[in-house]
Amino acid sequence: MSEITPAEAPRRTVFFISDGTGITAETLGHALLTQFATQKLRQVPLPFVNSESAMDAALDRMAQAMREDGARPVVFSTLVDQKMQARLDNSNVMVMDLLGAFLKPLELEFGQKSTLALGRSHAIADRQHYHIRMEAVNYALQHDDGATVRHYQEADVILTGVSRSGKTPTCLYLAMQFGIKAANYPITEEDLEATGLPNALRPHQSRLFGLTIEPEQLCHIRGERRPNSRYSSFSQCQSEVEETERLFRKHRIPFLDTTSVSIEEISSKLMQTMALERQLY
Amino acid sequence: MSEITPAEAPRRTVFFISDGTGITAETLGHALLTQFATQKLRQVPLPFVNSESAMDAALDRMAQAMREDGARPVVFSTLVDQKMQARLDNSNVMVMDLLGAFLKPLELEFGQKSTLALGRSHAIADRQHYHIRMEAVNYALQHDDGATVRHYQEADVILTGVSRSGKTPTCLYLAMQFGIKAANYPITEEDLEATGLPNALRPHQSRLFGLTIEPEQLCHIRGERRPNSRYSSFSQCQSEVEETERLFRKHRIPFLDTTSVSIEEISSKLMQTMALERQLY
Repeated sequence: MSEITPAEAPRRTVFFISDGTGITAETLGHALLTQFATQKLRQVPLPFVNSESAMDAALDRMAQAMREDGARPVVFSTLVDQKMQARLDNSNVMVMDLLGAFLKPLELEFGQKSTLALGRSHAIADRQHYHIRMEAVNYALQHDDGATVRHYQEADVILTGVSRSGKTPTCLYLAMQFGIKAANYPITEEDLEATGLPNALRPHQSRLFGLTIEPEQLCHIRGERRPNSRYSSFSQCQSEVEETERLFRKHRIPFLDTTSVSIEEISSKLMQTMALERQLY
Repeated sequence: MSEITPAEAPRRTVFFISDGTGITAETLGHALLTQFATQKLRQVPLPFVNSESAMDAALDRMAQAMREDGARPVVFSTLVDQKMQARLDNSNVMVMDLLGAFLKPLELEFGQKSTLALGRSHAIADRQHYHIRMEAVNYALQHDDGATVRHYQEADVILTGVSRSGKTPTCLYLAMQFGIKAANYPITEEDLEATGLPNALRPHQSRLFGLTIEPEQLCHIRGERRPNSRYSSFSQCQSEVEETERLFRKHRIPFLDTTSVSIEEISSKLMQTMALERQLY
């Protein structure tokens, strides 16, 4: 296979087509495309293609991209509707059928035909899904930053750590993505001066998870908020971090350094460490 | 193909294995498995399998599941490392190689080999990713519920609608998933009594997006918060919703009924309507 240098290669348009939001198509498609970093790609989402007319419009856009680029578009599809998928397959584009590629082998493995159904049939599951997520998001917002420490017994996990160590976005991600109820409690200087765990946390030790961060990074983040303050000084950041890590170790609270870790990764590791089960997909 | 009834079918274990968080494997795997609703499945995530020893442990768990179930496990994989994937392929499980299945056709299409690289190589992208998301999440939190209306010029979109119509979770989802800066402004009775758009919104009309909800549903949601109050009474909910929708129409603000729509779907439709481009994948 001979390599084409970026200068020679035409621009391509990549479409992500779906009956639904298309987020799965975009996520997997993007993971694949990062393996071809030198390609000049224009990425276009085509969500909610769930009618003949929406499909007509989608095919028109693909034909137009082909004229503009002088090369056929690459289309990542999670279309569930077989008729829609067939129309795509019969068009003049390169189709990556993300569901279809695996349905046949699964049918054989399970000895059962798949129930190819459109969004409608998932209405009840969607409703439950929505409710679980709402509950979890509201819980995270109500129990953000130690705002209230009541109902901690309802928490699946209580995140703790110094101010600006990444607790809030992690809690929200856990709620949004997994339906996990996560509270967060900031460790303050007062807490560090006292002996033992903060009172609010003591009864819930088994559900505590700590976040830590490199003092340099903390100093940088705090500086954006309150420049030239004691709060954002390196010495303050360093001592808070050191003492908080000591507290975590002393009370055997599992903790993670968030300095160069994405929220997805923090959340995933936390789920694993705390043996939490996701409540939604 | 003969159907096996659930009673005869053995339980199966499904694994989602990945070098990273495994969220893509879980999402696509789950979409496929919903097509086989009657199967008795146990689902096990195996994230961060990025070392020989982690792979040893993963293969052990698969072998154990096989003994327990009396049937081979089904494994959805997004392993990037070819050696790891080969170990999986050579084991006695059913492998659904979500990346591998599409890499060859893409290599042919692009006339270029894929740069199969482990997480490390994405460090810089991850860092930018993290920063964009943090900024967007912080923006959403600071501009939640009309808390502050300064910096509205920085918003990619400003959501508006009656209290409890789904604005906050939608803003957070937009920030988390797409890196979109979304503020939200609640329409109050005071706003409805005044003429025209609320002052805070007037300069930003082109970036407004409305959420509405069926009065019955709103009444139910508000009732959980403040039962037997004027706030949660049906007549109050109904008049607020009607007048808010009238306001949307009068000022040509695009809006969406959130009553039986998931946050993913609201967000996706909003992105489409407002022609917003996602800032992260």
